[in-house]
Amino acid sequence: MKRSIYLKKKSLEEARKVASEIASLIHLEEEVIPVIHSQGRITAEPIFARISSPPFHCAAMDGIVVKAETTYGATEESPKSLRIGKDAFFINTGNPIPQGMDSVIMIEDVHLVDAEQAEIREAAYPWQHVRAIGEDIIATEMVLPENHKITPYDLGALLASGHREVRVKKKPKVLILPTGSELLEPQEIDTNRSNSPTGIIESNSYVLSGLVSEDNGIPIRHSIVKDDRIKIEEALLSSYKEADLILIIAGSSAGSEDYTRSIIEESGEVLVHGISMMPGKPTLIGRFKDRPIIGIPGYPVSAIIAYEKLVRPILYQSLHLTNPERPKIKAFPARKIPSKLGTEEFLRVKVGKVGEKLFTTPLSRGSGIITSLTRADGMIRIPALSEGLAENEETEIELLKPLEEILNTVVMVGSHDLSLDILANQLQRCYPPLFLSSHP
Amino acid sequence: MKRSIYLKKKSLEEARKVASEIASLIHLEEEVIPVIHSQGRITAEPIFARISSPPFHCAAMDGIVVKAETTYGATEESPKSLRIGKDAFFINTGNPIPQGMDSVIMIEDVHLVDAEQAEIREAAYPWQHVRAIGEDIIATEMVLPENHKITPYDLGALLASGHREVRVKKKPKVLILPTGSELLEPQEIDTNRSNSPTGIIESNSYVLSGLVSEDNGIPIRHSIVKDDRIKIEEALLSSYKEADLILIIAGSSAGSEDYTRSIIEESGEVLVHGISMMPGKPTLIGRFKDRPIIGIPGYPVSAIIAYEKLVRPILYQSLHLTNPERPKIKAFPARKIPSKLGTEEFLRVKVGKVGEKLFTTPLSRGSGIITSLTRADGMIRIPALSEGLAENEETEIELLKPLEEILNTVVMVGSHDLSLDILANQLQRCYPPLFLSSHP
Repeated sequence: MKRSIYLKKKSLEEARKVASEIASLIHLEEEVIPVIHSQGRITAEPIFARISSPPFHCAAMDGIVVKAETTYGATEESPKSLRIGKDAFFINTGNPIPQGMDSVIMIEDVHLVDAEQAEIREAAYPWQHVRAIGEDIIATEMVLPENHKITPYDLGALLASGHREVRVKKKPKVLILPTGSELLEPQEIDTNRSNSPTGIIESNSYVLSGLVSEDNGIPIRHSIVKDDRIKIEEALLSSYKEADLILIIAGSSAGSEDYTRSIIEESGEVLVHGISMMPGKPTLIGRFKDRPIIGIPGYPVSAIIAYEKLVRPILYQSLHLTNPERPKIKAFPARKIPSKLGTEEFLRVKVGKVGEKLFTTPLSRGSGIITSLTRADGMIRIPALSEGLAENEETEIELLKPLEEILNTVVMVGSHDLSLDILANQLQRCYPPLFLSSHP
Repeated sequence: MKRSIYLKKKSLEEARKVASEIASLIHLEEEVIPVIHSQGRITAEPIFARISSPPFHCAAMDGIVVKAETTYGATEESPKSLRIGKDAFFINTGNPIPQGMDSVIMIEDVHLVDAEQAEIREAAYPWQHVRAIGEDIIATEMVLPENHKITPYDLGALLASGHREVRVKKKPKVLILPTGSELLEPQEIDTNRSNSPTGIIESNSYVLSGLVSEDNGIPIRHSIVKDDRIKIEEALLSSYKEADLILIIAGSSAGSEDYTRSIIEESGEVLVHGISMMPGKPTLIGRFKDRPIIGIPGYPVSAIIAYEKLVRPILYQSLHLTNPERPKIKAFPARKIPSKLGTEEFLRVKVGKVGEKLFTTPLSRGSGIITSLTRADGMIRIPALSEGLAENEETEIELLKPLEEILNTVVMVGSHDLSLDILANQLQRCYPPLFLSSHP
């Protein structure tokens, strides 16, 4: 079914709804894997305990195990003598309590008279220093629900409840297809500084691969495809089946060689083309055959924003997980920040503390400036209906770095000298908790 | 150098100082790895740009490239005609600006009369739609400082600045040695429910392995060693050299078969034995040969607390990274929480919202109860000098789960029926953002 109507620019909110609809095209298979390799994976079913933990009544201390009754009456003044091998048996932490016994006396409280006799100066009570069967986990109880991301702690609960294997969802596979005749593979660059490269290094696919891995997916990077309609179509047709989701980078703006849209229209459907957000405007959402496809803009910051706002939610939805939120703080703009009405803008910012107040200053807005992200402390969202932020308008910042790192950073504003980077590095080498940040 | 003086119980703060001293025994080597595999690794030196990004003046749009001068005077009323191949050349985003040209006109603004002529209705200005060389990164400037954990964004900056390889620190290798005659390897358990296991399943080493991986280290798990002085010593002697840090699990309390201390005293030094915290009291800190060694208590919760309070900081220090802090919130105890004076206590808690206030209730305090961690929303620290928390004493909670997940959880207190687990699972399956938690 092919739509050829002109698609008007959508708001990010509308685009996210469409993304959520195409996410439902993804049906992840399940697989059974060893528990010891399951950290970070998502359970595909509720997990019930096969055995109790501990699996039997066991000693909670090293010492001797007795029947409490036989110790009654022992005091400091009139110690009681126990026959080793008859009234009392040596036992170590974790060993099962033998039939007929019910109490453990710590080895420190036992006076060994000889190999056959032990003396105690205090009576034991039933269940003293005994861990009862199922004290932690009772066989058949639920250990983990389904749609749960397995933590290191969970490994302990799974193993202790008798699981060697666990049924998890397969990770979503994400095909990442970079397109553009101007692009060079990183290995094509002559890193000898005297030879200037003849193209732009393709890095978006690696950034997106890294993000997909962080978001519980498996990135499958395709090599660069030139701006050639036939070649792009061939690349998609030959690899779409191995992926649950397709990201095609660049080729979705209005340029003369932007074929993405017409290829998708021919083999599927374009649902959104153009989102009123900045960076990330030329993002496309559609379906190629029966697979969801996102046309990711070619500029690095646009690519990342398009990924985080649209692709990340699709991945989490496919795994039935809640989309993670970054920690947030509030700060005052150090100066007025204007923004275009009608466009939702995502600004990369630095944050600094002056006195008791947190202030924020925007970094470069250029969607080609990857360093505006690598250097950012956080991100501000300016809604479409706002013309920007006034100087004293406290605003919410999504943090990209831990707050303690930001607060341990000496911020220098007003000039940026390259030697300050050297100084910052020295600080980070010698005083790891301290950072220096300088920008114009 | 062997100390045989009796070591008094240390406060956690004192123990952390000792841990920080032995951390300085770790000297991580460096290695050069491909940038595309460097995500999450720690830079071993500052990284300077080899090339600029973009590496040349290039088109920021698809269109034609011109010398701005030749377009001056073009208006809606008097369009200007440009000769393709002489005054103007087709250019795509990212292509280099040819010698003598300085401006790009978007293809949408170009009227192609025929193959040789293009008409424009607006003059271009110099540098219009041109990305200048070094707009993002200037060759020789610092891209990343040393001691920096490489993010997906950073991959973009490293590749764009001409790096194919990057020098990083080798990950710290952590030998994890579980000891105990009562232990069974997970694969020794007959998972057929009718056969009750004859020992305790060893799971601590896998939990610690998972935590080490999360903390940028490489876990090396040794198989279970029985409580036999010779065997434990042999295991340590044959494997300590491959590790930067050794964790020996169990065998460090006062029991009859706890050999850890005397083995370490013979081949190194015991610096701390016993910490006034709960769980985690029998933790040991020392040196085996020239390697730092931590004696980790055998109870699962004690093992995790000892790891998080002492081992994690050692790993971060060895990589010159700031110890990560978990997000914190404040809540009121739902009832009085008593605690032992003189012992720093770490309580696992649930958190729930009643009206506008957050309340917290402790889970089981037993150090053998791993489910007190898998079910916990957070952890409360009760200082050694406190006898506990009063009902209306707001207290800080370190979160183990995202706050939004906690706030989306319906909490049922007062009874726990196993069928509620089933209901909770159903909720998590069908309404992923909602959770149910019930406890007595």
